[in-house]
Amino acid sequence: VTTHLEAELAEQPEALARLLERQQAGAAEVAALIRRPDVQYILIASRGSSSNVARYAQYVLGRAHRVPVAFATPSLYTLYEQPPRLDGALVMGISQSGGSPDVKAVLDEARRQGRPTVALTNDPSSPLAQAGDIVLPLEAGVEQAVAATKTYINSLGAIALIFAVSTGAGLAELEAVPAQLAAQLELSRDATERLELLEGGTVIARGVNYATSFEIALKIRELSGLLFESYSAADLMHGPVAAVSAGWPVIAVAPSGPARESMAEAIDGIATRGSRLLVVSDDEALLARADVALPLVSGVPEWLSPLVAVVPGQLAAMRLARLRGIDLDRPLGLAKVTLTR
Amino acid sequence: VTTHLEAELAEQPEALARLLERQQAGAAEVAALIRRPDVQYILIASRGSSSNVARYAQYVLGRAHRVPVAFATPSLYTLYEQPPRLDGALVMGISQSGGSPDVKAVLDEARRQGRPTVALTNDPSSPLAQAGDIVLPLEAGVEQAVAATKTYINSLGAIALIFAVSTGAGLAELEAVPAQLAAQLELSRDATERLELLEGGTVIARGVNYATSFEIALKIRELSGLLFESYSAADLMHGPVAAVSAGWPVIAVAPSGPARESMAEAIDGIATRGSRLLVVSDDEALLARADVALPLVSGVPEWLSPLVAVVPGQLAAMRLARLRGIDLDRPLGLAKVTLTR
Repeated sequence: VTTHLEAELAEQPEALARLLERQQAGAAEVAALIRRPDVQYILIASRGSSSNVARYAQYVLGRAHRVPVAFATPSLYTLYEQPPRLDGALVMGISQSGGSPDVKAVLDEARRQGRPTVALTNDPSSPLAQAGDIVLPLEAGVEQAVAATKTYINSLGAIALIFAVSTGAGLAELEAVPAQLAAQLELSRDATERLELLEGGTVIARGVNYATSFEIALKIRELSGLLFESYSAADLMHGPVAAVSAGWPVIAVAPSGPARESMAEAIDGIATRGSRLLVVSDDEALLARADVALPLVSGVPEWLSPLVAVVPGQLAAMRLARLRGIDLDRPLGLAKVTLTR
Repeated sequence: VTTHLEAELAEQPEALARLLERQQAGAAEVAALIRRPDVQYILIASRGSSSNVARYAQYVLGRAHRVPVAFATPSLYTLYEQPPRLDGALVMGISQSGGSPDVKAVLDEARRQGRPTVALTNDPSSPLAQAGDIVLPLEAGVEQAVAATKTYINSLGAIALIFAVSTGAGLAELEAVPAQLAAQLELSRDATERLELLEGGTVIARGVNYATSFEIALKIRELSGLLFESYSAADLMHGPVAAVSAGWPVIAVAPSGPARESMAEAIDGIATRGSRLLVVSDDEALLARADVALPLVSGVPEWLSPLVAVVPGQLAAMRLARLRGIDLDRPLGLAKVTLTR
């Protein structure tokens, strides 16, 4: 191991196990807030990879607590200085660094309006943490590579933990994930080593892995500089599919579960366009349709599949960056923390 | 005029004027629902161009009524059959055809839960209309081209009208828009006639024109098949900018207003990468920085700027499709209505 990125990818199982061990009480505090009778929805403020965590939360907390999850529009709080009324909201900020001023501005406003706030951050001494009534530390350890990997996994893990401790269901399933994640890293290392350079690509998913689709596109893009984009498989068919031409790479994230059939249909639609199909799945029938199969370990329940399904994407991103001769820890002049006001 | 698309683009000012004339009472009914004490936020279900209207609503209604706007995750209602509790929500469906089953599913669930529903649709006899307690017809007339143009403008107009009748402010400003839109069509026709073929592109904006950025990327993409994408200027800087290389076209939507300074900074950042810069603005200083200036008519207040700022994008989409020899009314095998379940 020679780069921070590789070290941090390898640390993911251990980092997740640490979070699950240390933060059950913290997650229970958050779950209690969500159940407060005056909380009718959750409003999440985030940027970058953390916005993909917010997409995961939208499905998991939406299904678990049946509480809708909305995304804040930080510029209403900063540029326009016209924040909405937050009656009924529990406001959650997600930021690995805890340094983004516009994410903090949303929590500050929630406090002014007397609404409960939660901060999910890897730095419990950060400005964001100070704006949270409850702070859930991500326990990922210091992350030095520009591309977020273990903090992404642990942010997903924190959302899953809130669900599990709150419903009393799924904790055993979640505690099995660190070992599954380790197996996934092995499995995907082999599959991605054989990848050849791509010209760009479109990543698609539906349901709980919508988050994974966005995160894979972001990771490949920021590490390799290749033009990758993400769509809900449903939205892609409303027009944007026009730009998916013969030979264009499409990564379909399609694990077993309720979204599988819808993804199988999308794969049919994509196949008729003659695209180059990469499939991330634990389903043999779907993998068999791929030009490049990126298999997932079996036995991971669908609600937890985003914690393993992102791994082939992380490793593909690393592989593609290498093929382009890019410094994995400082790709393309990006900074670790971007301070949006 | 030889295609439906051209005819419908030209009809936009007249279609908008018709909406404003006919639907003030309908908009007032919606506004009254929004003010109901039990309404704490608005949940919008939509697909395609209508999702860009939802982005506009997020800013306009967020600022006007100070009511947060959230987006529904239709697959929770369909694929997963685990819809969230909708206490506190006013649920709005936006669909020009009114035919999308998953958008209707969200309104049906809201009704089951006893929550108020509003349908914005161009077809008042559509399934979506039947699921709305209040139906606001878009009054755009039949739209035959695959690419939505006048129904997009009128959907924005409907949101703006709800704001104006509800706050008692801005109605005169809104009623000035049809004439400004006609002037914008003239101005942009000249500017886009000179466009040469692009290889693809990234469209950026912040604030109220975030919607415009998405709609311009979608329109160019579905008409020309070129790979266009959209980002919040703030999110782009969190990593995705890595794929914006020297010579890559970037369209910055940057009208005067609170988001201008932030966009000027983004333009600086983009310029250092040597990208090919197209600027949509009424600001001479920003237009002067562009490789291709796409000027906006002056005098349109920022909150209404999305109704004119999309026009250079619509006409650029048509121009680029023509340069590629594509049938404007049936581009690339797309269907007018996509039925997602």
